[in-house]
Order: sequence, then structure tokens, then C-alpha cells
Amino acid sequence: MNNPQNKQKAPKNAISPTRAENYAEWYQQVVRAADMAEMSGVRGCMVIKPWGYGSWELMQREIDRRLKETNHENCYFPIFIPISYFQREAQHVEGFAKEMAIVTHHRLRATDGVLRPDPTSELEEPLIVRPTSETVIGEAMAKWIKSYRDLPLLTNQWANVVRWEMRPRILLRTAEFLWQEGHTAHETHEDAMKETRLILDIYCDFVANHLALPVVPGEKAPHERFPGADNSLTIEAMMQDGRALQAGTSHYLGQNFAKAIGIQFQSREGNLEYVHTTSWAVTTRLLGALIMTHGDDDGMRMPPRVAPWQIVIAPILRDDSDKQKVMDYCEKLKAELQAQSYGGQPIRVKLDARDISGADKKWEWIKKGAPLLLEIGPRDVGENKVCVTRRDQLAQGKRFLARDEFIGNAVAELTAIQKNLYDEALAFQQARTVSNIKTKAEFDAYFSQDADNGFSSKVGFVRAKWSGDPASLKLLDALGVSVRCIPFDQDGKSGTCVLTGAPATQDVIFARAY
Amino acid sequence: MNNPQNKQKAPKNAISPTRAENYAEWYQQVVRAADMAEMSGVRGCMVIKPWGYGSWELMQREIDRRLKETNHENCYFPIFIPISYFQREAQHVEGFAKEMAIVTHHRLRATDGVLRPDPTSELEEPLIVRPTSETVIGEAMAKWIKSYRDLPLLTNQWANVVRWEMRPRILLRTAEFLWQEGHTAHETHEDAMKETRLILDIYCDFVANHLALPVVPGEKAPHERFPGADNSLTIEAMMQDGRALQAGTSHYLGQNFAKAIGIQFQSREGNLEYVHTTSWAVTTRLLGALIMTHGDDDGMRMPPRVAPWQIVIAPILRDDSDKQKVMDYCEKLKAELQAQSYGGQPIRVKLDARDISGADKKWEWIKKGAPLLLEIGPRDVGENKVCVTRRDQLAQGKRFLARDEFIGNAVAELTAIQKNLYDEALAFQQARTVSNIKTKAEFDAYFSQDADNGFSSKVGFVRAKWSGDPASLKLLDALGVSVRCIPFDQDGKSGTCVLTGAPATQDVIFARAY
Repeated sequence: MNNPQNKQKAPKNAISPTRAENYAEWYQQVVRAADMAEMSGVRGCMVIKPWGYGSWELMQREIDRRLKETNHENCYFPIFIPISYFQREAQHVEGFAKEMAIVTHHRLRATDGVLRPDPTSELEEPLIVRPTSETVIGEAMAKWIKSYRDLPLLTNQWANVVRWEMRPRILLRTAEFLWQEGHTAHETHEDAMKETRLILDIYCDFVANHLALPVVPGEKAPHERFPGADNSLTIEAMMQDGRALQAGTSHYLGQNFAKAIGIQFQSREGNLEYVHTTSWAVTTRLLGALIMTHGDDDGMRMPPRVAPWQIVIAPILRDDSDKQKVMDYCEKLKAELQAQSYGGQPIRVKLDARDISGADKKWEWIKKGAPLLLEIGPRDVGENKVCVTRRDQLAQGKRFLARDEFIGNAVAELTAIQKNLYDEALAFQQARTVSNIKTKAEFDAYFSQDADNGFSSKVGFVRAKWSGDPASLKLLDALGVSVRCIPFDQDGKSGTCVLTGAPATQDVIFARAY
Repeated sequence: MNNPQNKQKAPKNAISPTRAENYAEWYQQVVRAADMAEMSGVRGCMVIKPWGYGSWELMQREIDRRLKETNHENCYFPIFIPISYFQREAQHVEGFAKEMAIVTHHRLRATDGVLRPDPTSELEEPLIVRPTSETVIGEAMAKWIKSYRDLPLLTNQWANVVRWEMRPRILLRTAEFLWQEGHTAHETHEDAMKETRLILDIYCDFVANHLALPVVPGEKAPHERFPGADNSLTIEAMMQDGRALQAGTSHYLGQNFAKAIGIQFQSREGNLEYVHTTSWAVTTRLLGALIMTHGDDDGMRMPPRVAPWQIVIAPILRDDSDKQKVMDYCEKLKAELQAQSYGGQPIRVKLDARDISGADKKWEWIKKGAPLLLEIGPRDVGENKVCVTRRDQLAQGKRFLARDEFIGNAVAELTAIQKNLYDEALAFQQARTVSNIKTKAEFDAYFSQDADNGFSSKVGFVRAKWSGDPASLKLLDALGVSVRCIPFDQDGKSGTCVLTGAPATQDVIFARAY
């Protein structure tokens, strides 16, 4: 839908500013240049455009497949939640957030031609636009669950949610966003914890294999848990400015919500007991994580698994006499490519025959990050070749390959691109993670190198011992640093807390975060 | 999630009341017995449960496939629409509805432990929860479209919408429902009308082939058009009480919205022109249409194409010594069945090994309408047989078939069930459609046979000439009848208006409607 007017033959970089010049602004520019999303005229709300939404659909398909495979069933619950449901929750749950969109009227009235809420349509009980659905799904569970035979109850929904964000940032933090939210109920603590971990493992595997995001899986520290959770598990990804981004969470809610809402069941022993619940989600913020992880100074680089088009064919049609010949060649190429399967699905091939300049077209797809771009002119047709640009190796320029050789290798190329993006991100994460910081002075020195992190800084994750002492948290606040997670893999050795010097055994990840 | 306590061995009918006894109440009871949806504690809002949502997902998959095939792209637009957008629309569009959920505050505050909207968080401009998205998508189009090269713009979104319904009826008319809404912009009237018709044809084909719903496609009469539309196309289905249900609509909006919002483009001739837009939708009300069309006095009958499970295997496990043998047999049966493809997808087979009584389990699946039910006991295993109940031929009872014979015929059986449901619905529609009514007296007599229609009445569709005279509409109101559509297939002959006796050439469908 964009007609970029960039006419340079070989721009130094398609995105300005570069990551090194201004990372935050670079991000905004890539979102725009890749045409993935834009802020709307509605405060804090975004429009997700086809290239972004297409990628989200591929994420949905894969997550949904995995959830169904593990016996979760999709439902749909109301977007509105009566204020009284939150009232119950507020009495039971500490730290409950209050920034929500509140519906108070149900009719517009035109007075002197001006539309306003009709005062006679005021609701007796205001309704909240769901910020998350524990309460409303819990009410349903309380009705549905009678005995242990009804457990586990494994529910998921794909939905929009609203949180009134004061400082929106496109795709990462918006008033409205899309997500899946899973809500499950179990007989025992053990079953529910197993579910909580199962889901985190699904998320971890999904982001690694589909989004090419290496993450650190672990537990949230108690003060970072979801309000009402007894345990929160998380996967933490590192963006190219060294900041952490929480890419998915899975919460064990104990019996807290069950008690607030009254979700009871008759146990195998015949007693009336409260269920143990979990909730877990990933959101469209993953699109932001994709950009911040894989984008470069020429735009987005889409991992093939979630690229709406994996191969784009751009015919070069200078001369009307060649046009049909080139188009026929491209159509045939497309048909042969999409007859092949990559990742269990036909290769997604776009033939972009729009009547715009070849350079514009090429740079549009580079900025969008299509993994493979084929430019096909009359000479290529004559020589039975294809001109290939691999987006993750843009610096290596075009390659001219024999047509059949390219077709034969297409799946291998996509596989290699997917792997390369993961390897690059993993190498970045490892290079920016330090585990040799032992004292508060070293810790301060590390995070003071660059108060804003930034693409060119060395600041990233510090893996160090932490005592868990809540009093140590204010030392972090001063640096703008937080405890991202307590990784599952622990060395179990004793040591001293990097913040307080007190004895400590657990390793945690410290970082600045989105 | 339901444990029906129905212990009868051979109940006369699983649903009470029957269709003949009380059609409206029968519908509510089938929705409940099939466990497809339920009203929530939130006014006018429903919960769509796995058996209903699973069917909706299958509808989504098929519609989405057809839309992508015809070059439509999915996006996502904000759920909130500033009141000022409606202000512009209200000035341009007659008959604009005003029952909408209005967000006026963005924060809760606890005062003396009671949560209320915080008065300091009142919004400067109230936000409407989208009832439909012409305005907000139009705003985006106005930004995106510069020249004829950007046209056609073919956009679709899958979303929830809210309309403040005063008399909700589950799945058919609820405050919140799910839908797809397509919004497109075109250079010319002709292109936009072509699109409007293309979509109606997709809907018509989809509901016939997937939902087994025969429909009458046609134009809405001018007074029944979508507010702001120059033409509205519709598909009208007949429910088992003879009432019409609008199953999908496709609107040609002319330049009305383009002018209200300011969506202009530079034409091929270099002039600045307004685009021609369309919008079109199908909703979760199709789930209600499915029930009202195919349900019988024993519950739902799911057309195989949209049945979440097409074949359910219920092992009969009376004796622990046989248990493993029966389960192994069932697992193998399941594997062989789901290795086959029906309608381009693997057959969806559920092995229901829950520890509940065989009769409960059987009747649960009958009420849900699983197309084929297999009950497998130790004797069947010994004889290498399966005991088959075909839901659309329940009266014929169980059949005992050789295992391999059943497996070999499974696809043919599903195909036959799908066809049978369509044929039954078509026969019903034809039997309840009359085209020999020529005078107002005959017309009155027809609709006065049964003012509430009803399952046992003869009232349905009247196909007759209508002059289009708006004054004739009040004659219809008195009977509770409306002009459902002007069918595409017209005989073109002259005649006289059934309501007024004036000369008339067009045939229309008159009916009572949901």
C-alpha cells in the first residue's frame, strides 16, 4: 500500500537513523518501512497491516496447533467484565492494575446535531473492557466444574485486550493488543505447576524455532510476578540494544483466583476443594520483538517460518515485447516453488507484477525483509537463470544461479536463513551476557557504561548471584535495571549476592527491559 | 464439560420441548444440550464453548482461504472509534444506529474499598466500541490511497463487534459477536459492484457447501439496505419455523463513505476522485443458523464440513480385563480414519475414553450432533466390527459393520451426510416457499395461518411481484412480514403487485424474519 519514493540506486542504508545512531527511532522507522503496523488516529491504538498481521497469523497457526496437540480447547469469552468481578479480585489480589477502559453508557444522542453519550443510557454497573480474563473465565469455570472428572479444564482464547498505556510504543506497548490467553484449572498443585511449565516450554520452543529468538527461560522473582500468581515463568529475549523483552509468560495462580471467585470441585475423596489455576499468554508484542531482534539498518529481516511471503519474484518488465515471456517464466517459477514444502507447508511465493520501478520494488521487499528476492529480467529468461538476493546476507549482493539449481535448493536456502537468523541472535545474546560480575561496584560500572544501553554499547544481561532480599531492589531502581528472571539452569553453587554481598545461591538475570 | 444426567435407555426425544411444541424454547435447549454456547453473567454477552467455537474456526478457515485466494489481505484495526468519526458519518448517513457501548473513563479508583470510575480519568473525547468499522478503516484508507495504483485496496479483518441489543438471543443477536468484515476501495462503480457480487457469491457457495444451507441470493429492497449503502446484497436462509435469517451481506457503499471521510485518489486521467467502497460480513450468527436449520428433536446435527469432530469413537469399557484390548482397537481405528482425507483435510476423529456411562456418552454426542458415532465393545473387537450410528439417520438405529468396510467407506459416509443435510434443508425450503399467491387477500390468508410461524405451520417464503411502492410497507408491518430480498433470478415478466395491485415486474421474497 506504500509507494516509497526512494530513488537511490544503491542507498548506503535504507533506514535512517541507523541502529547505532538512534535505536529507538530506528525501530519506529523499521516498523514504518516494513509496513507492518502504524499508530491509528485512536489514542494508543494501532493498525496492524498485512505484512505484520500475516506474520501474526503464522504465529497463531503454529501456537494454536501446539495447544490443540496438548488438548487445549479454544473458547470465546465476553470482552466486557462487570466492575463487580474486579471488586472481588481487588479484595484478594495485591497490586491489581487500575488503568482500564470503562464503558458507562450504551447510547449516543444527537443534540443540536452533536453526538454525545445519552445520559439516560448510563449503565447501572459500569463494564470494563477486558485487560485480561481471569475473572470472567473464572466465573465460567465455577459453573462448569463440579467434580474431579471435569478436570483438568484446558481453555484458551484468541482475543483483543485493552490496557490504558500512558506511553504507547507501537507493537510493544499499546492500549489495545492481540493475544492468546490460556486459562486452566487442575486438581492439584503438581498438575497445575506441570501445566505452567509445559506451556513455557511450548513458548520457548516456538520462539526459538519459528521466530528465531533465543531466550532465557526461568522464574520471575516474587516481586515481578503477575498480581495474584504464586509463581510466574517467563522467557526473556535480548533486543539489539541489550535490553530484555519479556516474550511470553506462564503463571501458576495457586488457589488465589479459585478462592476469590469460588471455583470448587468434589475431589476423588469426596471433599469440596478449590481448583488450582494457571494462565499464560503471548501477544502481538512478539512482532515488535522480531523487529528489534532481526531488523538491520536496511529494514526488517523476516524469519522464513513467519514470513508472509518467503520468496518474492519481481519481474523486470522494461520492454513490452519481452513482457509475456518474462511473466510466463515467473509464473512457472512460482508454481514450481510453491509445489515444494518447507516446514510442513507449501512455500509461500509472491509474484509482484506491480507497475512500479524495479529499484523501488526491490527496496520495498528488502525493507519488509522477504527472505529471498528473485529479480527476473529478459536476459535471465534467455539464460535460464534467476538473480537471487538473500535478505540475511544483503552485503553479499545478488547471485545469478541456474534456475533448476535454485529451485532444487530453495528449501535448503530457507532453512539456512532461518538458522542463520537464530545463530546471529544467539551470538549477540551471548556476547552481551556477562557472568563474571561479582561486586556491586563492578555491577554499577557495567550498567553505567551506557545508561540507555544502545546498539553500540556493551550493556546487556548480567548473570549473577542474588539473595532475593527485597531491600536490594532499590539499588536496582537507581540504575533502571530489573531482575528479569531466575533461569531454570542453575549451577547450585553458593556465592554472594552481587548487590548486597549477603550469601546467595541462585543465579538471576539482571537487565534493563522493555 | 457437561455431565448430562439423562439416564433413559432410549429417550423418545433428547430435547424437550420439541420443535413442534415450542420452537423458540427448543432452540435454546439445543444450544445448551449441544454445549455450543451459553449466556454469560455479562449483559447480552455470550460465551462460545469449544463445540461452537470449533465449528466457527472451521468456518473461519474456509472463508479466509477463499478471501486470500481472491487477493484480500487481513489487517487489524482499533476496537475503539472516536465519537468524532461517527459525527462525520451521522452527517452523511441516514438511519445510522445509536445503540453502542461508550467508553468514557480510563481508570478505576477504590474509594472506601469500592471500585468506581475515577472522575479525574474522564476522556476528553468518548470512544465507541466498534459496532462496525467503516469509519475507522475509511480513515486508514484515506491515508493509504494516493493514486489508482493503490486500487483496488482489498482489506478484511476478523474481529469482535458490539451492538447494544435490547432483546439478546444467543448466537443470533448478542451485544458482542464475532465476524469478519471486509472493506474494499475501487476506482470505479463497476469494479466495486463486481467485488460486492464476488463476495456474495463466495458466501453463497460457502454456506451451501460447508454449512449445508440452501439460501436465496438477491438484492435488499432500498428500505432494507445497510445505512449508507447504494446497494446491499444478501443471502436469505429459511429456518425450520419458516422464518428467514439473513446469513451474510455484501454492500456497495458507492462514494458515500468516501465523501464523508475524504478518501480520494488520483485517477488514470490525473483527476482527484472519490473511491467507491464496499463492505461485507458474516458472523457467529451462522452458528445459530446451523442449529435452526439442521437441529432436530434429539439435538444438533453438525454438517461434517464444520463438525469439530466428524467421527467420535466411544469405547465401551465394562470389564478391566478387556480394557486394554478395546482401547488398542480404538486407537488403531482412529489412526486409520484420520489418515484419510475428507474435504482436503484429515478426518477429525475423537476417541472419547472418559469414564462415564456409555449411554450418557452416546447421548452427549448425539445432542452435539457428531456426524458418525462408533461404539466399540469387547464383542466388536472380537468380531472385528464397528457399531455405527449415523446422526442424520438416527431413526435407523445402529449398524454393525465390518471394520475394514467402515474404514473404506468413511469418506463416502461423511460426503453422504453432508449432502443429505443440504438436501433435507433444500426440500424444506422448497416445500415452504409458495409462488402462486397473487392478491393481498391470499397474502393475508397465507401469513394469518400462523402468526408465529412455527415448526408445524406451513408459513415460509412467499415469492411474488412487488411494485416497490414504499407506501405498501405498512401493509407488511401489520403482518410482521418483511421484504427479504429481490432474488437475482427473475422471470422478467410483468404482473401486478401482490400488496397493491399496481403493475410490477420484480419478484421478491416476503417472509417473517429473525
